[in-house]
Amino acid sequence: MSPVTGVVPPVCTPLTPELDVDVASLERLVTFLLDAGVDGLFVLGSSGEAAYLTDRQRATVLEVATAVTAGQVPVLGGAIDMSAHRVLAHARAAQQAGADAVVATAPFYTRTHPAEIEHHFRTVAAGVDLPLYAYDLPVSVHVKLSAELLLTLADDGVVAGVKDSSGDDGGLRRFLRRRAHHPGAQPVVLTGSELTVDSALAAGADGVVPGLGNVDPHGYVTLARLVREGAAKAAADEQDRLVDLFGIVDAGDPARIGPSSSALGAFKAALALRGIIDFPATMPPQLPLTDHETGHIRTLLGAAGLL
Amino acid sequence: MSPVTGVVPPVCTPLTPELDVDVASLERLVTFLLDAGVDGLFVLGSSGEAAYLTDRQRATVLEVATAVTAGQVPVLGGAIDMSAHRVLAHARAAQQAGADAVVATAPFYTRTHPAEIEHHFRTVAAGVDLPLYAYDLPVSVHVKLSAELLLTLADDGVVAGVKDSSGDDGGLRRFLRRRAHHPGAQPVVLTGSELTVDSALAAGADGVVPGLGNVDPHGYVTLARLVREGAAKAAADEQDRLVDLFGIVDAGDPARIGPSSSALGAFKAALALRGIIDFPATMPPQLPLTDHETGHIRTLLGAAGLL
Amino acid sequence: MSPVTGVVPPVCTPLTPELDVDVASLERLVTFLLDAGVDGLFVLGSSGEAAYLTDRQRATVLEVATAVTAGQVPVLGGAIDMSAHRVLAHARAAQQAGADAVVATAPFYTRTHPAEIEHHFRTVAAGVDLPLYAYDLPVSVHVKLSAELLLTLADDGVVAGVKDSSGDDGGLRRFLRRRAHHPGAQPVVLTGSELTVDSALAAGADGVVPGLGNVDPHGYVTLARLVREGAAKAAADEQDRLVDLFGIVDAGDPARIGPSSSALGAFKAALALRGIIDFPATMPPQLPLTDHETGHIRTLLGAAGLL
Amino acid sequence: MSPVTGVVPPVCTPLTPELDVDVASLERLVTFLLDAGVDGLFVLGSSGEAAYLTDRQRATVLEVATAVTAGQVPVLGGAIDMSAHRVLAHARAAQQAGADAVVATAPFYTRTHPAEIEHHFRTVAAGVDLPLYAYDLPVSVHVKLSAELLLTLADDGVVAGVKDSSGDDGGLRRFLRRRAHHPGAQPVVLTGSELTVDSALAAGADGVVPGLGNVDPHGYVTLARLVREGAAKAAADEQDRLVDLFGIVDAGDPARIGPSSSALGAFKAALALRGIIDFPATMPPQLPLTDHETGHIRTLLGAAGLL
Repeated sequence: MSPVTGVVPPVCTPLTPELDVDVASLERLVTFLLDAGVDGLFVLGSSGEAAYLTDRQRATVLEVATAVTAGQVPVLGGAIDMSAHRVLAHARAAQQAGADAVVATAPFYTRTHPAEIEHHFRTVAAGVDLPLYAYDLPVSVHVKLSAELLLTLADDGVVAGVKDSSGDDGGLRRFLRRRAHHPGAQPVVLTGSELTVDSALAAGADGVVPGLGNVDPHGYVTLARLVREGAAKAAADEQDRLVDLFGIVDAGDPARIGPSSSALGAFKAALALRGIIDFPATMPPQLPLTDHETGHIRTLLGAAGLL
Repeated sequence: MSPVTGVVPPVCTPLTPELDVDVASLERLVTFLLDAGVDGLFVLGSSGEAAYLTDRQRATVLEVATAVTAGQVPVLGGAIDMSAHRVLAHARAAQQAGADAVVATAPFYTRTHPAEIEHHFRTVAAGVDLPLYAYDLPVSVHVKLSAELLLTLADDGVVAGVKDSSGDDGGLRRFLRRRAHHPGAQPVVLTGSELTVDSALAAGADGVVPGLGNVDPHGYVTLARLVREGAAKAAADEQDRLVDLFGIVDAGDPARIGPSSSALGAFKAALALRGIIDFPATMPPQLPLTDHETGHIRTLLGAAGLL
Repeated sequence: MSPVTGVVPPVCTPLTPELDVDVASLERLVTFLLDAGVDGLFVLGSSGEAAYLTDRQRATVLEVATAVTAGQVPVLGGAIDMSAHRVLAHARAAQQAGADAVVATAPFYTRTHPAEIEHHFRTVAAGVDLPLYAYDLPVSVHVKLSAELLLTLADDGVVAGVKDSSGDDGGLRRFLRRRAHHPGAQPVVLTGSELTVDSALAAGADGVVPGLGNVDPHGYVTLARLVREGAAKAAADEQDRLVDLFGIVDAGDPARIGPSSSALGAFKAALALRGIIDFPATMPPQLPLTDHETGHIRTLLGAAGLL
Repeated sequence: MSPVTGVVPPVCTPLTPELDVDVASLERLVTFLLDAGVDGLFVLGSSGEAAYLTDRQRATVLEVATAVTAGQVPVLGGAIDMSAHRVLAHARAAQQAGADAVVATAPFYTRTHPAEIEHHFRTVAAGVDLPLYAYDLPVSVHVKLSAELLLTLADDGVVAGVKDSSGDDGGLRRFLRRRAHHPGAQPVVLTGSELTVDSALAAGADGVVPGLGNVDPHGYVTLARLVREGAAKAAADEQDRLVDLFGIVDAGDPARIGPSSSALGAFKAALALRGIIDFPATMPPQLPLTDHETGHIRTLLGAAGLL
């Protein structure tokens, strides 16, 4: 497989009110994203509620996504679990379902050590026959992957790339420069940001995995094209429009629900309002948005020209 | 089932060098603990490497433990996963394997909110037909369960008790007093400490879940008896002997491996040195202790009179 | 100076409504504590609002405390600041005001390293001619002092002791055992807990620095005596009474004010209700308790037999 | 005073080997920065070692900086301390020394609450007759200032602007858009980043406060000009050169010293190698770089064309 680059939305997992995977909605969502011109799909990431789905639900998501995509673009499958052997079980399921690559974080829940993080990625890579992307997600994993480690793992063929959801844009910039000077492997760098995509791509990142890209894939496809064309000002304007739209993630009242309920609930509410999926349901223990909160999302969608 | 109280070791999971569950060793370990007079067993907790075991390995552990125990004492099964529906899958597996209760933490990996933590425990309890114990483990879960929440959940029949592994002995003392004044339900309180068991039990905790209890169950059984008999000084002396023995968890060099590799590796090395299990292997990405480090464990075992 | 042991309350700093140090109230508070039989006084600690007082106010506190105490018991002065040379300025002021020892934390605000923490304490000790106590306060300093470091510093004559406000009673127990086996210096160990004093003293701690000791010094003096006499059950009962009283620190609504406003406000409200100080004022930006919240404090004081 | 914008280096504080402020070197450094065309100076920030300097040293720094600057550009003075009244003492000293504005963080060391943070900034602003800039520095203060709070404080005339050293570029982008839509006050936004200055300025930030700007002020002045001229590609190239140069902050071995010793030591070593200041000394308990580590800095300076 060639490296995954460009716009790679982390696909939301539509659910029925009974909390089954809503296969018809998922098929429509994948089709919607493909039609918008995305370059790849990442299923079972944070936006895909991987942490909330059962193994059976995860398998369904992988099967639907690969079937609908049918090889048009690569499909990355998240293999999210606490440690190497549990990750491997998911990675093999992804491989069996036809995913083109797997994405895994450092160990979490357990207390860990840099040498153990390295051993973890080596163990995962050795046990599955797909390219492995390291998922750098300190907000969930409580550790940051070092540039040193990533380049070592890339040189040894352990990781094909990194999905950087650390929010540390300064660190990303440093890593891109370090990679540029690096005599060895050149791991793919995908930013997980929705908000600084123009600057990340301009600085050399290979792609973007924006949760908001579920709601407005055309926006991110346009943004990536503008950066490629060197149209910095137009790219910044498109980024600014998307920054404003990103305000939907704050729809939920923080006195009542957490940031995941609010953000993933907002993505799904927006997709439902746009008619792409049928229901805005999220998995427990996430709590639903109120009608009032959904109204705020509708307003922002309208302002962004999406209704 | 009557409440689980007394000495309830969180059973280690012996492994073969090939990283399969070492069934014969696990049978010997369970028998060793039962013969020492423990009051219950907690399988698939942190000491049991739940975060590292695959679902298949977890099932084996549950089956072996319940088979060997054969109802002599209650068996609690850890249902360790990121969110409610994933926890439920493990809880039902535990029920099917014959466990007497399940133990679950708050959600982790995901960003959460007090209202969502409450919803999480309610969802788990509603989906399984076994008593539920809340596992308070901030070092892994990055959140502390509040006294308010625990009493509310107990009053509503959602949780039967709490395993307090927060290390916050002041908070434990406050909770025990609050429970004493509480007009409603009286949830069972088990401390996860190895080090302050005499004071926790004297202050009213109902039991203890000491990882070190794998290595020296007789010590904790004696300690609990001394507290029951009001022999404060003798209890403190026995606790002090166990505090010294607990030094084995620092055997691993922190420049080389993490605290989980060191502590769980030490428990297993000690069990192997005592002849209870065959191999000291731990699951990846934990790293093994060196011979030199194991030598230090041997010395401490000798000093504690265990060789 | 001989080591500071026994009951050493961290003296609150009474203020006028205009936020000057209320000298008359401070004199009464110190006298009240001395009359209760305390073994020492710690001024300018967390309970003394050191982080909020100006240097001029700090000097006043030191002068009043040493003048009223007049050598009856040792007076420890907090030298709370971000790094070594700033700490030294406070330490020298304490010396000049007649304090018998100084208390300092690891560096904070700055990012630090174990070797720098060690260098910090050595620099402070070298620059002032008073015994130095290390203040272990991770909740403020965001680092925990290691047993290794404390024993090394004690062996080298750098620190005379440690005030352990880490809340890590298991770690305290381990440190006390390690000190018992240590061939070198035996640093004094004072626990900052209000809640587990009976067990800390029984386990070998030399003294206690309880914020709640401002409100009920007689309780802690009694508790320490009972432990000395080996009356474990009576000590536990007295501790339990103090645990209940400690509920005053939660008087403030956490939706409205922070834990410092609530706890220090409660200590001062209780002292005012008991007639020891004139005003419950605390330093900005702490916010005052409401009348309703103060009413709850009055209720708990009554239940503890203190009105 | 008009708002502070443009390139505003946080001036290092040169020291003699005896740890006095090296006045001659400080004068040369200020002159060097002014000659490079900077738009303002920020003394007594993190790069200025404010956390390490005594009050007397801080006063010297302010006096020297304002004297040399002589009104050519505005001088901002850091008023770094734990809480409002302590901050005010520094703010008034800055005012007396002729500073044009003061910069203060949220409270630290103390446990705090959003309402108290707001009260803190209001208390500081009310007590000093200079514009107040909020310093958002979660790495030191362990709290992030919210957009809501900053706009409220700006609307009420409490803060003139914010120095954003949070490293959260996505949050910065959101804040800039929110400010653009805000009907009220338009607080000045200065980024503390060295690494993403081109994108921050292009997105609408008013200025930059780069520690590395001590070493290469010409680079940042050029970078800011290129952004103003819309030369995105040339700006990115200059930023990349500065990113490479920023590698000097990693010169120190993390097994031996902390990140502050390494980064501030590197800035000073580079200034000494460039002949601007006489000594690379840093304040205790920071530890010095080795000759080998300084050699690495020399190499990077050469690569950046600065030797």
